[in-house]
Amino acid sequence: MILKDFSLSAVAAGIKYQDRLDLGLIYSRTPAVAAGVFTTNQVKAAPVHLSIDRLKQGRCQALLVNSGNANACTGKEGMEAALHTSRLVAEALRIPEEMVLVASTGVIGLPLNVAAFENNMDALVANLSDEHFNQVAEAILTTDTVPKTVARTVVIGGKEVNFMGMAKGSGMIMPNMATMLAYILTDAQISFPELKNALKSAVETTFNRITVDGDTSTNDMVLVMANGTAENSWIEDSQHPDYELFEDCLEEVCKELALKIVEDGEGATKRITIRVCGAKEDQDAEQMARTVANSNLVKAAFFGEDANWGRILGAMGRSGIRFNSEKVDIAFGDVVIVKNGIGKGQEAEKNASKILKNRHFTVCIDLQDGTGCEEVYTCDLSIDYVKINADYRS
Amino acid sequence: MILKDFSLSAVAAGIKYQDRLDLGLIYSRTPAVAAGVFTTNQVKAAPVHLSIDRLKQGRCQALLVNSGNANACTGKEGMEAALHTSRLVAEALRIPEEMVLVASTGVIGLPLNVAAFENNMDALVANLSDEHFNQVAEAILTTDTVPKTVARTVVIGGKEVNFMGMAKGSGMIMPNMATMLAYILTDAQISFPELKNALKSAVETTFNRITVDGDTSTNDMVLVMANGTAENSWIEDSQHPDYELFEDCLEEVCKELALKIVEDGEGATKRITIRVCGAKEDQDAEQMARTVANSNLVKAAFFGEDANWGRILGAMGRSGIRFNSEKVDIAFGDVVIVKNGIGKGQEAEKNASKILKNRHFTVCIDLQDGTGCEEVYTCDLSIDYVKINADYRS
Repeated sequence: MILKDFSLSAVAAGIKYQDRLDLGLIYSRTPAVAAGVFTTNQVKAAPVHLSIDRLKQGRCQALLVNSGNANACTGKEGMEAALHTSRLVAEALRIPEEMVLVASTGVIGLPLNVAAFENNMDALVANLSDEHFNQVAEAILTTDTVPKTVARTVVIGGKEVNFMGMAKGSGMIMPNMATMLAYILTDAQISFPELKNALKSAVETTFNRITVDGDTSTNDMVLVMANGTAENSWIEDSQHPDYELFEDCLEEVCKELALKIVEDGEGATKRITIRVCGAKEDQDAEQMARTVANSNLVKAAFFGEDANWGRILGAMGRSGIRFNSEKVDIAFGDVVIVKNGIGKGQEAEKNASKILKNRHFTVCIDLQDGTGCEEVYTCDLSIDYVKINADYRS
Repeated sequence: MILKDFSLSAVAAGIKYQDRLDLGLIYSRTPAVAAGVFTTNQVKAAPVHLSIDRLKQGRCQALLVNSGNANACTGKEGMEAALHTSRLVAEALRIPEEMVLVASTGVIGLPLNVAAFENNMDALVANLSDEHFNQVAEAILTTDTVPKTVARTVVIGGKEVNFMGMAKGSGMIMPNMATMLAYILTDAQISFPELKNALKSAVETTFNRITVDGDTSTNDMVLVMANGTAENSWIEDSQHPDYELFEDCLEEVCKELALKIVEDGEGATKRITIRVCGAKEDQDAEQMARTVANSNLVKAAFFGEDANWGRILGAMGRSGIRFNSEKVDIAFGDVVIVKNGIGKGQEAEKNASKILKNRHFTVCIDLQDGTGCEEVYTCDLSIDYVKINADYRS
């Protein structure tokens, strides 16, 4: 898929490792309407501060992103480095500095190697092409094992509107009102407030519902750029007949990227949906699902393909949500393993163990106490997660 | 050490595995004043419910404890099994049923094998001896690798008062107003309200400050039995001149047991103290220390002996406690690695890495924003933690 007026580029700038793509550029010749959602971690990286500030105007034209160094906890020098690299882009593309966003991901606390940016800016810009989407999707990866991209087309008001999205995830993943790096490009015509609202609500049910390890990053960022080249009728208020369609499609794109992040979580061998139903309120269901989804014991049992439902009940019991344990049903896929708080026995466990051998499955917890229902997406806790994170910087 | 009128016994009853001690009995010929603290997990095992109820009278004479099966999530049958086993003890020892407490630890959700208790009760009682303290300390273990015991003597009002404690821990350890199995025997003379208060305050700064994996068990229980045979002057109100001395000694015993639990956490290779100082309030310091102590990324870096302070700042930033990241100092042992939010560079990291090679060390976080200060004790996240918990039931 090609989006009109969007071009992309990535080069191997040697920011941390040699000979791997680590510096990417996304450029829209037509200034794009843009909205972002950022980490809620109090410790925010310099590029996050800068991009939050610049996105207040609701527009941008270019995004410079590097992997290998998060430019976080780097003080005034870090902010100067972020400003300096954005200036390099503005000069090379001859656009206003305020139209450039910057993003970084990688190790926290190391000074950014600004020379690597200076030395590679010409090559980066010269390489811009509407066919280089996958280059950037690769350049943003850290411990990810595969690039994560998605493409969608939807007809809005008789016009084909296209979406292309990319994301990186892996570790330090429990976005809390924000998420990891994800960039979504679209040619839709839509105004800033509508784009912002659509993104916020899409993130809430997608990126904000995934967890790899319960840790929230200093650099999380989801950005959507809409350059309007699809020439659909401007979606300029939320009552517009096409707003909902746009929002649904954006949510689908976010969900697919979010699930890809979980599947490629550090060391992950499985993606698991934790669904809590029958809670008093939706937010109770979410809180309980999140507690189960973050339990190391539950996640290690998934890795071992052990239908150890006692650990699920244990995690539920410390979730802070009140429930009657004698009314709890738990199913792995379509196998009910706990009925009214009591195990269904060895036959059920044997069948549940088969479900656990799958790459994806759902654990459904029914509290039988209301209509609140929510899902959270998680992965298993494997030996490789520990290996990766014991060795990450070496 | 021998405590007058206390006798103990353990046998291999084959509750889960053959040929290992798994059924223990603690008996005080003199009825003891007793106080307990129990799990705050909403899902409580049957023996926990029964023991909470019986301890309301502030006295007990015997405790029956098994490993291999938690008797949790076992419904009405589980409670009947707990009652039945306590009756077996009462009959064998010819004491009132209400003076018998029961405790279980092990797999959640399996029916308790009551026959194993029936078949072994005579042998268990016949084996009672004041020299068998270590037998019971061994019988309560699950994935623990070593028994955890402590002994202390303190002179109170001219009389030698003795304490003996045992504990088991390992996984599902983040006691929240309660803890794992720990039993403390003393010959002190003390009244129930004072014993209860002393235990509560000792647990708060010891067992409640440890974490292995952030999971709270369904079966946590700390019990102290004081049979008064030391004949110290009765500590019968909290203004008694000896109360504070008793409380301090009890706290020391609890702390030593708690640290032993962390050191023997599932797969643990190190014990780490996370100290947060300079917070606005003590409880802010505690909450932040707990968040850092539970971060998988921080704990995996400890396992890898990597002084990855960026992950510590990342965890601090999602702790919910407000702070100014530009005022944060972080030290590993006596090596300052972050000053005013910025890394001190490679030399400091090299020195910090040496500290990380130790079996025990302290990470000190100074927020420079007040006098609030608290410590939490944690262990590293190792490959063996995942191995143990992927395979636990097989």
